[in-house]
Amino acid sequence: MSKMLAEIHEQPAALERTLRGQRAEVARLKKRFESARPRLIVLAARGTSDNAAQFGRYLLETTTGIPVSLAAPSVFTLYHSKLDLSGAVVIAISQSGESTDTNVVLERARESGALTIGITNERLSTTARLAEHVLLVRAGREKSVAATKTYTGQLLSLYNVAYALGARLNPAALDRVPELAQAALSLQPRIAENAVRYRFMEHAVVVGRGLNYSNAFEFALKMMETCYVIAERFSSADLLHGPIAMVERSFPVFVFAPAGVTWPGLRDLLAKLNELHADTMIVTDPANSEAARLSARSIIVPRKLDETYTPIPYILPAQMFAACLAAEKGLNPDHPRTIQKVTRTL
Amino acid sequence: MSKMLAEIHEQPAALERTLRGQRAEVARLKKRFESARPRLIVLAARGTSDNAAQFGRYLLETTTGIPVSLAAPSVFTLYHSKLDLSGAVVIAISQSGESTDTNVVLERARESGALTIGITNERLSTTARLAEHVLLVRAGREKSVAATKTYTGQLLSLYNVAYALGARLNPAALDRVPELAQAALSLQPRIAENAVRYRFMEHAVVVGRGLNYSNAFEFALKMMETCYVIAERFSSADLLHGPIAMVERSFPVFVFAPAGVTWPGLRDLLAKLNELHADTMIVTDPANSEAARLSARSIIVPRKLDETYTPIPYILPAQMFAACLAAEKGLNPDHPRTIQKVTRTL
Repeated sequence: MSKMLAEIHEQPAALERTLRGQRAEVARLKKRFESARPRLIVLAARGTSDNAAQFGRYLLETTTGIPVSLAAPSVFTLYHSKLDLSGAVVIAISQSGESTDTNVVLERARESGALTIGITNERLSTTARLAEHVLLVRAGREKSVAATKTYTGQLLSLYNVAYALGARLNPAALDRVPELAQAALSLQPRIAENAVRYRFMEHAVVVGRGLNYSNAFEFALKMMETCYVIAERFSSADLLHGPIAMVERSFPVFVFAPAGVTWPGLRDLLAKLNELHADTMIVTDPANSEAARLSARSIIVPRKLDETYTPIPYILPAQMFAACLAAEKGLNPDHPRTIQKVTRTL
Repeated sequence: MSKMLAEIHEQPAALERTLRGQRAEVARLKKRFESARPRLIVLAARGTSDNAAQFGRYLLETTTGIPVSLAAPSVFTLYHSKLDLSGAVVIAISQSGESTDTNVVLERARESGALTIGITNERLSTTARLAEHVLLVRAGREKSVAATKTYTGQLLSLYNVAYALGARLNPAALDRVPELAQAALSLQPRIAENAVRYRFMEHAVVVGRGLNYSNAFEFALKMMETCYVIAERFSSADLLHGPIAMVERSFPVFVFAPAGVTWPGLRDLLAKLNELHADTMIVTDPANSEAARLSARSIIVPRKLDETYTPIPYILPAQMFAACLAAEKGLNPDHPRTIQKVTRTL
């Protein structure tokens, strides 16, 4: 078994440790935010962590009403701009805590008077040292180059940030996340079977919207890194706005399809894709009674889910799919060609 | 000749009209910003206009120091969140002025007490009616489904917003933009010749960074819409962070390579791509004396350019390339399959 697949299976335990481990710091943050509510949230990250930041963007705006900006690190590192970040909270997300440009954003943010939070898997990292508040992801060392357990740990940490900011999230629902992850892992045999069919897939499009937009990015990134599939990622709205022109008969499209507010648009997209005879696969759950009828292949996470809590259980089957497809293609997902685990960006 | 190619050639005149036409409104905006400086800039757009917004993000942060957020329209349209946008300026960008979700953001922004600006090609559109200040793009009616002249008109309008916000931009340099666009058009024969070589290209990666990041998105979108090429787009930093694993021998990569702060990172990327025997083409200008040596094929815009003013002259050759490649492939770029000009998003 690849390290990647082993680490995918470590997620329920890692999420459980992360939940319990962050409790005290989340309470401190909540207190702090009660006396000084930020006017702006800035999220800084690269790679998989940047996909987690995309999730944070939707979760934090929709649950707190505070505008969010995804930082463009080069504004700080190359253009040396001094952004006015007073009254903002700046959240750096980095698995290793050693992503150089993310750390530069953190330093500039402190100088500018922002409150800083670090979300990292490494207690002794530069990110942990620079940030005033640290939400430690307790995923254990991640050995595979393809990040999996740290991604879901980062998503969980972002739920905790939202909660600290007064979002009406149900703590009991958050406590259930490790169990939902466990349930999603039961899909492994079905996914391994399914992956065979994609042995010769060279390109794909992945679609998500709202809270699952980040998962479209993350699933696509996993397929690019570990399977060398040219995987594009779009929201259903953006795909329909132009790029759908490239979708022809048998073009593979993967869609995250929860019940809830994003479903009507995704349903229209799936109908359109069916008209075009695209080859679709959806990730959904029993709360969406319509989804499975709109695609020949559906991966159904075996728990009825509120959309708010779909992103973690939905990404697990996608991670397993990428790991299984890499194996099918005879590739080693733990050591993709060309790349290293920690990227120091110029 | 396709309408798309004809409209590409209309750009110098369209830019000239837009520059002159916006002068009075820019002066009014400048006055208003002098008495009330916004704390946050929000840009809302879809499709090509959203690529222009990406440019605005870098330009506005680097020249004004005010943080920028690219709006996620579904936060307003699907999740019905009430973002606190008091003290913000919200800029909606829409060619037709009838992009439904962009207009919803504008309405919510007004309710929330934000100052609103509309950048649109249509004087009588909903966007123009909803926004307090209108910066009209005077590109003339755009008949091709693939937007070209409205994109550069939007970029120009964003320079004007930066100027109104006190950015140290040289008005004389802005006045020169139509002439730079004219010079870039002289590359047409060379580009048409070059396009032949790409007749059978099925996928590609486009790279830009900082101010030219938006051009990577826009060039990729043009190739997806008009040539049905599966075109990914990345910053050099993000490509190196993972997706480069999919780049193999002969993989086509297009790079926007101006002189200036983004060049060292792009140079490293090009060196890496050469090691991998990727097939690169760069868009550059004589100010960057190193770039042409790092790629077998370079499109050199015939004017020495300050990086700040590269995005408009650099996108013209890319637009021409897409139009010529579509012709080579026997496709009609004016009417891509599946899509329409105005997208009303659910």
